[in-house]
Amino acid sequence: MAATAAPDCIFCRIVGGTIPASIIHRDDDIIAFMDIGPVNPGHLLVVPTAHAASLAELQPGDGAKMFTMAQQLAAAVRRSELRCDGINLFLADGAAAGQEVFHIHLHLVPRFRGDAVRFSWPRTQPSRDDLHTHAEAIRAVL
Amino acid sequence: MAATAAPDCIFCRIVGGTIPASIIHRDDDIIAFMDIGPVNPGHLLVVPTAHAASLAELQPGDGAKMFTMAQQLAAAVRRSELRCDGINLFLADGAAAGQEVFHIHLHLVPRFRGDAVRFSWPRTQPSRDDLHTHAEAIRAVL
Repeated sequence: MAATAAPDCIFCRIVGGTIPASIIHRDDDIIAFMDIGPVNPGHLLVVPTAHAASLAELQPGDGAKMFTMAQQLAAAVRRSELRCDGINLFLADGAAAGQEVFHIHLHLVPRFRGDAVRFSWPRTQPSRDDLHTHAEAIRAVL
Repeated sequence: MAATAAPDCIFCRIVGGTIPASIIHRDDDIIAFMDIGPVNPGHLLVVPTAHAASLAELQPGDGAKMFTMAQQLAAAVRRSELRCDGINLFLADGAAAGQEVFHIHLHLVPRFRGDAVRFSWPRTQPSRDDLHTHAEAIRAVL
């Protein structure tokens, strides 16, 4: 197990090779393997090899590599025999966002027209003044 | 309007400054602004300044920069007065994945315990053999 691994982390065990996984890619920084509970065939996870529980703990260079790998994998899924009609990338940071494994990971979910995935995402209609106020609140601490 | 802008694209118009937006950050490659139909306060979009309809058209370097910016913005939202309990990053590539504006963009959605966002995401339980077959199908064309 690498020095940066967390002993009780299931993804660190996959990185360390001590539990099975269906691995698509691995290098020093990134590993990609199939989600064991896929929403659709081809649903995979892009994961930093170094343990990071959250976006806050993730090395920024590793985040960039995760996205680049996800982009390459999206192209591969589309040209593979699995194919798909669309792709979602999804990341949950924190239990309130749906994170279940506390080793940060980016889902790549192949989508098919008429599949069972639904995002219930009720939108609001704030005023432009409110939007400007929110932007300023974030910009002030960026 | 930049040489890489698409004339009918609403996000290219925001980049070009010809329609209003509540902008948090912009540099040569990336712009971030508030979603006008926020799911929760602080819901923002990270967008490449160069027009790219899809992940396939997105320059890989721009994808990496989008994620790095999203990570910085996530930290800023968490320490801002807006705050949140969690964060989702979400990207839709293709109409079947829910993409509505065909200039690729990464949603950053602040989440709050008990909020109205729901991801209906029915999971399947394929065999390890099936998962290995799917991994091999993607790896073969990666």
